[in-house]
Amino acid sequence: MIIVLKPGISKRSETAVLQEIRKLGYRPHVMRGVARTVIGAIGDELANANLNVLSAQFPEAVESVMPIQKRYKLVSREAHPGAFTIRVRDQLIGGGKFQVMAGPCSVENESQLLQTAQAVKAAGATILRGGAFKPRTSPYEFQGLGEKGLKLLAKARKETGLPIITELLSENHADLVAEYADILQIGARNAQNFQLLIAAARTGKPVLLKRGLSMKIEEWLLAGEYVLANENPNLMFCERGIRTFETYTRNTLDLAAVPIVKHESHCPVVVDPSQGAGRADLVAALCKGAVAMGADALLIEVHPNPAEAWSDSAQQLTLEGFAKLMRELQPFITAAGRE
Amino acid sequence: MIIVLKPGISKRSETAVLQEIRKLGYRPHVMRGVARTVIGAIGDELANANLNVLSAQFPEAVESVMPIQKRYKLVSREAHPGAFTIRVRDQLIGGGKFQVMAGPCSVENESQLLQTAQAVKAAGATILRGGAFKPRTSPYEFQGLGEKGLKLLAKARKETGLPIITELLSENHADLVAEYADILQIGARNAQNFQLLIAAARTGKPVLLKRGLSMKIEEWLLAGEYVLANENPNLMFCERGIRTFETYTRNTLDLAAVPIVKHESHCPVVVDPSQGAGRADLVAALCKGAVAMGADALLIEVHPNPAEAWSDSAQQLTLEGFAKLMRELQPFITAAGRE
Amino acid sequence: MIIVLKPGISKRSETAVLQEIRKLGYRPHVMRGVARTVIGAIGDELANANLNVLSAQFPEAVESVMPIQKRYKLVSREAHPGAFTIRVRDQLIGGGKFQVMAGPCSVENESQLLQTAQAVKAAGATILRGGAFKPRTSPYEFQGLGEKGLKLLAKARKETGLPIITELLSENHADLVAEYADILQIGARNAQNFQLLIAAARTGKPVLLKRGLSMKIEEWLLAGEYVLANENPNLMFCERGIRTFETYTRNTLDLAAVPIVKHESHCPVVVDPSQGAGRADLVAALCKGAVAMGADALLIEVHPNPAEAWSDSAQQLTLEGFAKLMRELQPFITAAGRE
Amino acid sequence: MIIVLKPGISKRSETAVLQEIRKLGYRPHVMRGVARTVIGAIGDELANANLNVLSAQFPEAVESVMPIQKRYKLVSREAHPGAFTIRVRDQLIGGGKFQVMAGPCSVENESQLLQTAQAVKAAGATILRGGAFKPRTSPYEFQGLGEKGLKLLAKARKETGLPIITELLSENHADLVAEYADILQIGARNAQNFQLLIAAARTGKPVLLKRGLSMKIEEWLLAGEYVLANENPNLMFCERGIRTFETYTRNTLDLAAVPIVKHESHCPVVVDPSQGAGRADLVAALCKGAVAMGADALLIEVHPNPAEAWSDSAQQLTLEGFAKLMRELQPFITAAGRE
Repeated sequence: MIIVLKPGISKRSETAVLQEIRKLGYRPHVMRGVARTVIGAIGDELANANLNVLSAQFPEAVESVMPIQKRYKLVSREAHPGAFTIRVRDQLIGGGKFQVMAGPCSVENESQLLQTAQAVKAAGATILRGGAFKPRTSPYEFQGLGEKGLKLLAKARKETGLPIITELLSENHADLVAEYADILQIGARNAQNFQLLIAAARTGKPVLLKRGLSMKIEEWLLAGEYVLANENPNLMFCERGIRTFETYTRNTLDLAAVPIVKHESHCPVVVDPSQGAGRADLVAALCKGAVAMGADALLIEVHPNPAEAWSDSAQQLTLEGFAKLMRELQPFITAAGRE
Repeated sequence: MIIVLKPGISKRSETAVLQEIRKLGYRPHVMRGVARTVIGAIGDELANANLNVLSAQFPEAVESVMPIQKRYKLVSREAHPGAFTIRVRDQLIGGGKFQVMAGPCSVENESQLLQTAQAVKAAGATILRGGAFKPRTSPYEFQGLGEKGLKLLAKARKETGLPIITELLSENHADLVAEYADILQIGARNAQNFQLLIAAARTGKPVLLKRGLSMKIEEWLLAGEYVLANENPNLMFCERGIRTFETYTRNTLDLAAVPIVKHESHCPVVVDPSQGAGRADLVAALCKGAVAMGADALLIEVHPNPAEAWSDSAQQLTLEGFAKLMRELQPFITAAGRE
Repeated sequence: MIIVLKPGISKRSETAVLQEIRKLGYRPHVMRGVARTVIGAIGDELANANLNVLSAQFPEAVESVMPIQKRYKLVSREAHPGAFTIRVRDQLIGGGKFQVMAGPCSVENESQLLQTAQAVKAAGATILRGGAFKPRTSPYEFQGLGEKGLKLLAKARKETGLPIITELLSENHADLVAEYADILQIGARNAQNFQLLIAAARTGKPVLLKRGLSMKIEEWLLAGEYVLANENPNLMFCERGIRTFETYTRNTLDLAAVPIVKHESHCPVVVDPSQGAGRADLVAALCKGAVAMGADALLIEVHPNPAEAWSDSAQQLTLEGFAKLMRELQPFITAAGRE
Repeated sequence: MIIVLKPGISKRSETAVLQEIRKLGYRPHVMRGVARTVIGAIGDELANANLNVLSAQFPEAVESVMPIQKRYKLVSREAHPGAFTIRVRDQLIGGGKFQVMAGPCSVENESQLLQTAQAVKAAGATILRGGAFKPRTSPYEFQGLGEKGLKLLAKARKETGLPIITELLSENHADLVAEYADILQIGARNAQNFQLLIAAARTGKPVLLKRGLSMKIEEWLLAGEYVLANENPNLMFCERGIRTFETYTRNTLDLAAVPIVKHESHCPVVVDPSQGAGRADLVAALCKGAVAMGADALLIEVHPNPAEAWSDSAQQLTLEGFAKLMRELQPFITAAGRE
């Protein structure tokens, strides 16, 4: 840690700060600069106390405290320099093959799901998505079919061979959802629901962690750390848009997060353009951007009849719209050096 | 709902839109304007389907869809026009008496808690706060004493008579925490963890709902709706800062939310300046602002020795700092017409 | 305009609102809904008064006022449905050929500029960028060479044949800068400096308008309207990142703005990934994303020795880095159907 | 400056970094920590080059570069530790007397202005505000009366004795506006229009600098530095709300900026609640908050008939509304220790 002292403080104040640094487990190293005196506190920041306390304890003497080490370790590339892929049945996420997860926002009934599953498979999707438990902003909106939805997903997997991804939104459902799902999705609103992250990790299933609406990349990586620290290495991050002042789109898809997370971490990165835009007419352009910027997979909402969907109707693609998108994406996937 | 049509669409497209509106349970009413044709869809928006689907279904014909009704009802002032107060043991929140909830960020041990409880009581606090279960950004940070912390809070209540407020962060702890606490606090990171809100509501205890870091006021009120819709009327909202681009403070305390929520809802409004600023030196000024703007209560972090606190050390007041603040606040509480 | 009335207001209040609507030039049309009465005010919103006044004038009766028409007209696609290109010497911006504008952040001296100009031309750039007048956050930073810089740019154009783009930051420099430049750039900090926009428009030169750091797309289009309304049709928009809470990058590049602006307006769209990221190591990925999402051109900072640059050193590419980027971009430009 | 090196770099890379630091005018000081090696670069950061270049120049070796010194100096409290007030005719801003600047958003005609001026004076306002040149988001909105408006302001001053504040929005108007105004206001959209700041400073008149919509406090102070660096010490800062994701209010008034700027700088701080909220019904609560948090003055929009105002009608108070506000404010001004 670096501690910047205020100008013109007394020798006595400085000595007190140095003593406290030693007491908290660090070895202080003083540098006298032109305008400020700076103390380097040498020690392991992850093992020792956080020296931020110094600015509270010595407000008259300490101007600022800056950490040197990154706070995450297991998710970082330093911890796993080589390539890393996640096996989901017979698919590998994070390798040379670009993966497309597609399906309805909510599972509504058998025919809706099976029709969608077959169509997205035929168009080239490799994993089926579908919500059985739905977190809704209002208590008066459709909350999902629950276990009945999970059973329909399992049936769709059996018929199409596509692995399934579905959202987990309660610790109490972890075992139930893990019984059916191949990948557990943690939604944006629960991205810092740490109890849920721990419960998801402990099922042993791969976890897809969506970025919270106002989550800094560092916080997102630290939330992922909860999964790896609970002995589940199969974590992937999913950018789905952050909240900004812009109102034309529902969220602002932060595509720069793709190369950043791939630089900081070895975990695969997925992009969800449907949530990111909140508008079906922008999904195709955002998919192309995500592929070009190095994403490992896409998560796309598709519905046989979006206008009659029970949730998020404005952002779901039709079956034909999805097939067209997959054709248009092909040259960009090739340009990005993926299959 | 209001549906704005694009200019120059065919009669046939318009007819199709009108048919769909009827099918979804509304009665359409067409207005031909100078630059646009607008359809008023008459019907109960809370009971019927959301017409947002129309922009997805008729992208060539529909320019935009705007709701008319507010989406929340039980938390709204329309539902409860008169005064509303919450009784917490012998204290009333939301009435003429201004309430101050104070105590440590985390319960650390008996002497820390009892010393703080006695000091804040002596200075004028009326409710004791303290965290037993702590949500932490990193899995390597102190996660709270758990049930042991709850027992210490109960002991402090017994010794001082102060009711206690503490955070609930897992559905699985709801019964346990409700056994000890007088008010259940839902933290900012869980503000849209709807399963947790339902579990908290069902304990029957008063619930303090913090605003999420990127929550619009409408979404906050809708999250509160989950509490009232689960038959618990004793809800209070707590402004604790939103996330913005400014980095000088940890969050930007949105004090305008105080008069806004009091205008929209009958529920009491609390302000947490400690989380809002993330810096002890700004707490006093923010408390004065909150009082002046009509808050019903404050939630303040106080610690006998902030520099040695196990969490959030930079934002906790000392016991003397808190006593000084309470003296300084007095004229503002009087000016605001409160006791 | 749509005026939503509050529930339960008196007949007399309603009549007063209706009278005021008529007085302000609109024809009111009343719709009685289930929960609210709504008035459609029929009339040209761009020609008549803004009815927002009603919520101030009748606070007890009017709940909200919503505009129906878009506020921009000349920049909108409705005003110019066909293809639109801007000729800059022998280059066309907005057509089938993808354009790359590259060069140093600041013009520093002749050898730096000429070396860069020749290198970027050899690598495939088609327009030369370079700042002669620089807006700097601090008055103590390098403010540009001024007219001397413009002369060097003209010399570089003569030697390489590349048209030049440079920033205009004072009304008083408009004639001077227009004498040398082929395209006038309006920077993000001046994006709502309307006097400057008018001065730029009046020179008759093509104008590149960067998006302000906190500008909604609608405001950006309206700022562009100042250029077209001053009889200069040759406007292009440049996305360069917006300000959000994320601190890993200097700004958040909003690539969704590319398809949105191209949907709303006929004007070409340029992307500046150097400003967007503030980090050279992200520029290549962002360029690929911009191409894939339909941008018409890129604006890239390149310097023979970024570490010695007099401004924005962290985000400029080296000459070799730029040549490598151009090679990597090629397959994406082809995939996007451009030359 | 502090330079953090990446783990595991070669001795040769480290030597190269050290050489470059020396070349750029700093003396390097190496600290070897547990997880990272850190270099303290000793030298004056305001006089020497910015070492941010190192992360661009040595991407394989340098992890991050952190400045130690603050970038502003003349506006800082270190530069002027004592009390500082600005004299505007017979009023002192920044002293024991709380000042209220009130008047219409735009000057519309003589009777509107004189009626308002007399009413706000009678209610206790001490300075008259009114816009003669108006920056408008759309070119089709009223742009102000120009010099005619300035003449009316001068007439109102003559009749009431109130000093006047009005906005300057073009360098070319600086002399003209300064001829009439007692305080020059720089609007939020021009807060980083540095040429305008310089022109305003050079008139010698006191300058009120509004915070830009997405301006960090550090950037705001640096923009103020342009005024002081051009030999005009009479600068005051005006908080008027920042842009966030919240849409209930037009902007989010960041009242914490009041104590922060007063802590960092000696310059007086003004709050504009009219722009901050964009809604007249919130103005009173925000004024009380601003007073309680230590503001030196308020800037309030008042109009004899807000519904007929030519600009910003929704946020202007009526004459009676303003008089009522002034009565309600009194106890808070007293509580804050001001007259």
